[in-house]
This record gives sequence, structure tokens and C-alpha cells, in this order.
Amino acid sequence: MSLAALIAAVTPIDVAAATAARARNDGLAKPPGSLGRLEDLAATLAGIAGACPPPVPAAPCLVICAADHGVVAQGVSRWPQEVTAAMLGVFVSGTAASSALAATVGARVIVADLGVATPTEPGGVVDARIRPGTADLSREPAMARDEARRAILAGAAVARGVIDDGADLIALGDMGIGNTTAAACVIAAFTGRRAEDVTGRGAGADDAEIAHKTAVVAGALALHHPDPGDPLGVVAALGGLEHAGLVGVTLAAAGARVPVLLDGVNTNAAALVAVALCPAAIGYLIAGHLSTEPGATHALAHLELSPLLDLHMRLGEGTGALVAVPIVRAAAAALTGMALLSDVAP
Amino acid sequence: MSLAALIAAVTPIDVAAATAARARNDGLAKPPGSLGRLEDLAATLAGIAGACPPPVPAAPCLVICAADHGVVAQGVSRWPQEVTAAMLGVFVSGTAASSALAATVGARVIVADLGVATPTEPGGVVDARIRPGTADLSREPAMARDEARRAILAGAAVARGVIDDGADLIALGDMGIGNTTAAACVIAAFTGRRAEDVTGRGAGADDAEIAHKTAVVAGALALHHPDPGDPLGVVAALGGLEHAGLVGVTLAAAGARVPVLLDGVNTNAAALVAVALCPAAIGYLIAGHLSTEPGATHALAHLELSPLLDLHMRLGEGTGALVAVPIVRAAAAALTGMALLSDVAP
Repeated sequence: MSLAALIAAVTPIDVAAATAARARNDGLAKPPGSLGRLEDLAATLAGIAGACPPPVPAAPCLVICAADHGVVAQGVSRWPQEVTAAMLGVFVSGTAASSALAATVGARVIVADLGVATPTEPGGVVDARIRPGTADLSREPAMARDEARRAILAGAAVARGVIDDGADLIALGDMGIGNTTAAACVIAAFTGRRAEDVTGRGAGADDAEIAHKTAVVAGALALHHPDPGDPLGVVAALGGLEHAGLVGVTLAAAGARVPVLLDGVNTNAAALVAVALCPAAIGYLIAGHLSTEPGATHALAHLELSPLLDLHMRLGEGTGALVAVPIVRAAAAALTGMALLSDVAP
Repeated sequence: MSLAALIAAVTPIDVAAATAARARNDGLAKPPGSLGRLEDLAATLAGIAGACPPPVPAAPCLVICAADHGVVAQGVSRWPQEVTAAMLGVFVSGTAASSALAATVGARVIVADLGVATPTEPGGVVDARIRPGTADLSREPAMARDEARRAILAGAAVARGVIDDGADLIALGDMGIGNTTAAACVIAAFTGRRAEDVTGRGAGADDAEIAHKTAVVAGALALHHPDPGDPLGVVAALGGLEHAGLVGVTLAAAGARVPVLLDGVNTNAAALVAVALCPAAIGYLIAGHLSTEPGATHALAHLELSPLLDLHMRLGEGTGALVAVPIVRAAAAALTGMALLSDVAP
């Protein structure tokens, strides 16, 4: 499938089904509006499914896209690049944070390697490798446009596979030492915010480290002059292979009318690219949580998405999205399982 | 069991276990602190259980206490009092909002009638009736002190029953037409806030109705001059039978070292009474969500509890607490199931 076909397969959500969900919620055995954002979420799910009530997600799947970043040469992370590959092993062994949280919500976890620098593929990782990490985005484009395109299509293929296997809710996750630097660049490109607005502490930068990281982001933006009207160019110049992969996961899920639950700042950056490529995709996105990374706030505001959770999390790996899975289920279940008000107070 | 014995059975949480949970979280395979409030919650759960890691709640139980309110004679609710009894039938039939949400998180639901005005007991409701609704708190004490005491003990007996049956997490829920008026009075009594600060729209008051409701609350506070140093007197004069019942549920759960998950404004009011009676109980409380009722904000601030969710919900019945159950599970599961950082990045 070409990128153009991937985009063309995404159609707007079903407004009639969303409207029917709102009407149904108003008629349930409770004061109108008293379930708050669960009612909005139920309408979103109805619009995505094209059905009222929408199905209660029974088979959520977390798709973690992993890759490495040449910009780590600039000292933007205190963690060695080898941690990316090491974490693939932890994911597969079932002892990562995302593994533990996925188990509590009955979610499958799929890990895709879009381009880890040190390939030590443990069994169970999906090989979607485009290149061994990006180039240093502070000096040159992170990847070629065609590499970005291929990473998007590789992510889409992963999503289609899990959807074909029955996944009815896709949670996004990321792994990649240095990727909050790339995410900050991508978010700045689409939101027009300055480097200091979107650069955060990532996995634990101190004041001196964040000042350096911010300067690296500012320098990269000055070098590449990203054009938000060219989303493929933005992600190629400033993004990561996992960001591009997540764009593909998002577009493939939207094309299959499966809701996409965003995690933290890296998935928020990918969502900006996906929606810039394909505006209809916005209707399929649910913001699972608000990361403490400042770029997350600006990205979600730009997308006009309000996060379901604000638990001061900043781990990535899809952990925030996983904690939001039960909220999505609750919204659909309330609309499905409740008596009508007219049966209670005739 | 006497009220004094119920209170005496609550011992402070285990600070050593909470400290051990924080240390363990710092050593897990993630940047320290990156799970945000899940890490704080894990420490709370460890302190409650007296064990690190704490058990992952496997058998949550929602306890809904229901009762009627004489103050409805003042026109504080647009819903007829008969809805309280009618909703008991909906709970038992499994088609209430709380039923639908409980099913999504695997929670048992127990409904206790502490004093519905029109007894039409459907099978499956626990008879914990003290009197058929309260008196009109705007004219006289809602109930006698001894009735409040008996309602507390009745609630405690319900909680002990479900804990004996294996419940390892107690979510609180309420039902009672008119009860947000009583909750506002109780919250004002303990927080020192004015009637206009704590009175909300309840199940849907318009501007004129809320002005009237606020005047009723202000009048009741002026009539009874509640003394926050006499919590039993406060709940007797201004509370509801379900609030007193929820105090008992809370104290019994705390006495059994079982975490208590608060719902909206009515359970927040009950928590104020419980903690005033028994300061050690605070360590066992988890604020599930923030109701849109203004009294909820003031009550939780007074208790120094930060809600896990803010989804603009205001239904009661334990719905907000139920949506928070998976977050509690996630916090315990992450602490239990994750690899150590030293195994990943030695």
C-alpha cells in the first residue's frame, strides 16, 4: 500500500452515530450530562465505530514502536543508547512497566523495531527496521524522505496485522533514547512554539542538561526550517523512525475505524504528523493522558484534544495510554448497559 | 461493636512499608518518578497493606448506601423522592450506571438501604434501615445522635460482611434524592466554607433552584451551629443516613486495612466525618475522582487528598470511584511486576 492509499483509506467519523450516542446518553437513567466526559467519549467511540451504542473494546493492543536517535551524540540524554535495545528485551520478557500495566487491562503488547541502533533482536520483536537509528538531526536530516515514508508504511503494516488478529483498540507506545528531543522538534514545527516551550526533562535532565537540550532543539529548528505544510518532510528532518512508525499505526487504525489511544509526548508528536498528513484522522484519536513533558500540552492543544488522565506520568512505552484503556471501556459500557430514565421515573 | 471500638480498631498505616515502596519504585526499570502519581499511590497501598509490594486488588466491592432526606420538602431537588427507591431496583437489576461500570472493572456491587422513605425492598438490597428517611434538616436535626451512631454501625457491619467475603478494595457510593444538600451542610461544617461555596447543582438545579438550595443550606447552618469537634453531632443534625452509613463502611474498611476509594461529594462528606471521628482513617482513603459539585473540591482540599480523575462526573452511585479502580490496580501492579533498573542498565 502506498502512503497516498493509506491516507485515502481514512474517512471522517460517522457524525450521525455520534449524535445518536449523545441522544441515547441523554435518555439513560441518570441526570443528563452527569457522566461528564464519559458521555463525550461514548459519542466519539460511536462516531468511530459508526454504531450506537459502540462496541465495548474487548481486545486492546499496545503497539510500541522503538528506534534510536543520532542526536544522542549531542549529549541530550543521560541514558546510553544501548538502553533502547535492552528495553526491547524487557518488553518481551514481560517485566516492563507497560507489560505490568497491560496485564491489568487485558491488553496485548506488540513491540516493533523501526530502527534500533544495536540490533540484538530478542524473539517476539517485530522486525520493521528501516535503518540502524537516525542521523544526528542537529547536523543533517534525521532520515531521507523515502525512509520516513517506508517507516510509516512499516508501522501501518504492524497495525493492520494486529487489527486482522482482532484488536479493537490501539494504544500507542514508544521507546527510544533521545526521542523527546526529536519529539520537541516535531511539535515545535507544527505548533509554532519555541524550543524553550516544548523541550522537557525527558528521562531526567537537570537544569544544565535541559538548557543544552533546548539549545539543540533550537539549533535544529534553525537548521531545517521545517514547513508544517510538508509533514513528511518534518518527520524526515526532525523526527525519529519510531515517530514515523507511529504515524503509520495511527493511519492504519483510523482507516480500519479502530480508535487510537495516545500516550505521552512522543505519540503526541506522531499524532501531529498523522493529522497533518490526513486531517480526517483526528476523529479517531483519544488522548489517554497528559505527559509532564511541556511539548505534550502544546501538541494536544494544537490537536484540540483533552487528555483523560493527568497523573504526572512521563515514562512513555504506552503506560499512560494503558491506564486510560478502562476509561474507554467505561464510556462504551455505560452507553450500552444502562436502563432508560423513562423506565425509572416515568 | 460500639462506635468507640470501631474507631479504636483503626491503626495508622505502616510507614515503613510505604517507604519501602518508594525505594522499590526508585529501583525499577524506568526513570525515577516517571510513573508519577502511580508511585505515590503504590506507596499508599503498601502502607495500608503493611506489605511491599502491596497486593494488586483482585476483588473490589462497591458499597452503595441509600437513604432519603426530609429536606426535599423544601424543594431542593427537582427529582421526586420516589426515585431513591426506584433506583434500588435499577441497581439490583444490574442496569444502573454503577452496574455497567462495575462490570467493566470486575467489581461486586452491594446496595444497603439505610433509610429509604418508601420501602419497596427489591431482593438483593441489604436491609440496614434505621428510619424511613431523615427529618427536614432545615427545621430540626436530621436524626437523633443515637440514630446516626446506629447508621454508622450498620454501615460498618455491611463492610465487614463484604470484607469477610474477600473484598480487598472498597469503593463508596451513594443514592438519595436531596443528598447533595445534606452533603453541602456537612462539608460547610467541617471546612468552615460558606453555603455558597459548597452548594452545587446536584442532579441538575438551574440558577433559581441553586439560589434557593444555597439559602436552605445557609439557613440550616445558622439553625444548628454545627461544631466540627463533635462529628457525630454534625452528621446527626445535618447529614443523611447514607452519609452515616458510609462513615461506618469507611471505618470498618480502615480497621481491616482495606483501601477505601472515594466517589463524589456525598462520599467526600462522609470521609470528613470519618476522619474527624478517627484521624488515623485518612491513611486508608484514596480520592477516586473530583465531582463537579463545588463541595467536593473543598472537602478533598480539607482532607489533603488529590483526586485521581477529573472527568466532570457528578452522578454518584460510586461511578467515579469505579472508574478509578483500574488506576489503583495499575499502581500496585507496576510495583509488583517490573524488572529492576540494575538488570537493564548495569
